[in-house]
Amino acid sequence: MEKDIILTGDRPTGSLHVGHFVGSLKQRVEMQESGKYKQYIMIADLQALTDNAENPQKIRDNIMEVMLDYLAVGLDPKKTTIFIQSQIPALYELPLIYSNLVTLARLQRNPTVKTEMKQKGYGANVPVGFLTYPISQAADITAFGAKYVPVGEDQVAVIEQTHEIVKSFNRIYNTDILVYPNAVLSKNKKAMRLVGTDGNAKMSKSLGNCIYIKDSEQTIKQKVMGMFTDPNHLKVEDKGNTKNNPVFTYLDVFSTDQHFAKHLPEYKNLNELKAHYERGGLGDMKVKNFLNQVMQDVLRPVRERREQLAKDKKALLKILEDGTKEAIKVSNKILEKVRSAVGITYFDDQDFLNKL
Amino acid sequence: MEKDIILTGDRPTGSLHVGHFVGSLKQRVEMQESGKYKQYIMIADLQALTDNAENPQKIRDNIMEVMLDYLAVGLDPKKTTIFIQSQIPALYELPLIYSNLVTLARLQRNPTVKTEMKQKGYGANVPVGFLTYPISQAADITAFGAKYVPVGEDQVAVIEQTHEIVKSFNRIYNTDILVYPNAVLSKNKKAMRLVGTDGNAKMSKSLGNCIYIKDSEQTIKQKVMGMFTDPNHLKVEDKGNTKNNPVFTYLDVFSTDQHFAKHLPEYKNLNELKAHYERGGLGDMKVKNFLNQVMQDVLRPVRERREQLAKDKKALLKILEDGTKEAIKVSNKILEKVRSAVGITYFDDQDFLNKL
Repeated sequence: MEKDIILTGDRPTGSLHVGHFVGSLKQRVEMQESGKYKQYIMIADLQALTDNAENPQKIRDNIMEVMLDYLAVGLDPKKTTIFIQSQIPALYELPLIYSNLVTLARLQRNPTVKTEMKQKGYGANVPVGFLTYPISQAADITAFGAKYVPVGEDQVAVIEQTHEIVKSFNRIYNTDILVYPNAVLSKNKKAMRLVGTDGNAKMSKSLGNCIYIKDSEQTIKQKVMGMFTDPNHLKVEDKGNTKNNPVFTYLDVFSTDQHFAKHLPEYKNLNELKAHYERGGLGDMKVKNFLNQVMQDVLRPVRERREQLAKDKKALLKILEDGTKEAIKVSNKILEKVRSAVGITYFDDQDFLNKL
Repeated sequence: MEKDIILTGDRPTGSLHVGHFVGSLKQRVEMQESGKYKQYIMIADLQALTDNAENPQKIRDNIMEVMLDYLAVGLDPKKTTIFIQSQIPALYELPLIYSNLVTLARLQRNPTVKTEMKQKGYGANVPVGFLTYPISQAADITAFGAKYVPVGEDQVAVIEQTHEIVKSFNRIYNTDILVYPNAVLSKNKKAMRLVGTDGNAKMSKSLGNCIYIKDSEQTIKQKVMGMFTDPNHLKVEDKGNTKNNPVFTYLDVFSTDQHFAKHLPEYKNLNELKAHYERGGLGDMKVKNFLNQVMQDVLRPVRERREQLAKDKKALLKILEDGTKEAIKVSNKILEKVRSAVGITYFDDQDFLNKL
């Protein structure tokens, strides 16, 4: 039996951070190791261009960074196909074909795009490529026949757009070749969208509030020690708040009982630590020191693998090239079916030739 | 020295009519025979899909009809490259890349698209593919490095959109690979947009007011005899109006002094015939009979060539396939340069490899 297909990916606008690590990368590695799925992972350079057309070098510079992050966290090219979006013919052809099945009004109603447009202050001056990226995503998803698409809650509306395109296409062209995808939301909501080290809901390079997968021991320590905590927890003896406190949010996501046993044996688990902080008498410094040890434990093996991999980037590029070739092959099969369903096949189309 | 390049084309939504014949096809044959230009002619099936997504069979059925019309009027595949749009990779890839350089507001300001949207009653429910077709046309034009694009006056705004894209692209990506196209307007305004046989400014299949290049002798005669004339010219002795009178409009465009010498020797030329009609004493029937003879003379050799060509459609398709292969080759060269300028080349890009 054929395995169910999963499509995911990342925009190569920077190297990946711990938010990606717990929000999506770990899940991908688990799905890979479950053996139940065939997973395609796309480095989405074309999508990154939709709002970075004037700064393509940033995208180019981060292709290999993302690839290093992928392999460092445990994605295995023998099991998972990793490819570059811009190299796949179907990801140019399908959007053009699908764009006839979507109205402008429908695109403008898309809540995901609406929110993002507001954030970027685009208004009517939105680049057409940005406004239409849900059509491109429908292409990304359907080109591989993906049944599952792991997304953040903010991206569910984009999958709905894909649904509508699949439905229209299959109806109009009287076929069932396009597969309906299902949005997969992570069970771990906190991990889904990890806050920045400053407590900001959005981690971003420009805000300087990210811990990167590739960060050195020293950098991680600096960033953890500089994290925001409860602003009213000024003295050790003060009662502290563990909610909306980034240090505790990170501990929620990253720390295990084993970390306590190893680094902070006076507490059995996070609940005990939280209780102490809340009743007063526990200083931020001690909590941050512990979080630093946890983050170091989590990221050290990843970083070491990453450094190892970075020594032979030519080999890494070869892996990416092989994955890309595989992705071209797979997506071309669906593209051919789409072209044939629409009827834009002629020279080697027996039906067309017979009617001459 | 390399010849200047011309790009033109037609949407294969029906076979071509005498409006196409005098408005563009004759000009193309002249340009071909001048030997000064390299001409690419595109059967624009993708563009036709933008407002015919639900009726692809119409497009499919008319590919060979248009091809027959082309060769029948004298387009020569040895001199002019004829190809099918949907088979050219660059015509999918370039629009996606260019769409990041155009804003929604700019598309919505395009007067050509605005008018067409109004005609079709689209409003906000315009298919995205239709709204964005000026971006696709920029791709069609630049993919071949076309310096000249023969267009109707109503399409000049589309060429302006191409200008802006070329300018943005060359500036942002610091290159000069995209060529500025020039809109070429026909000198003969009357021929540019021939009225329908009913006097309607728009010839269209659904209005039933077209004379087709392929029409039989009998059909041409019926259509000419049924043409609208001056509605106040009821009796032979009435004074007649030759302005806004379709029969005279057609004579303006099609008749020559030779036609008079052959069929109506009592008049030296069209001016004499018009004068007689205007002062009264000349019946519609006589004028229509003459126009019929003119149209038969003009269309007979074209139709006979067309019937000859239609006997071997496989050979015709082979010509189209060869032209398409040539068009793929030429446009791929420009596409490669575009991809390289944007920086979405990796595996065989020496600059990328060197920086690994």
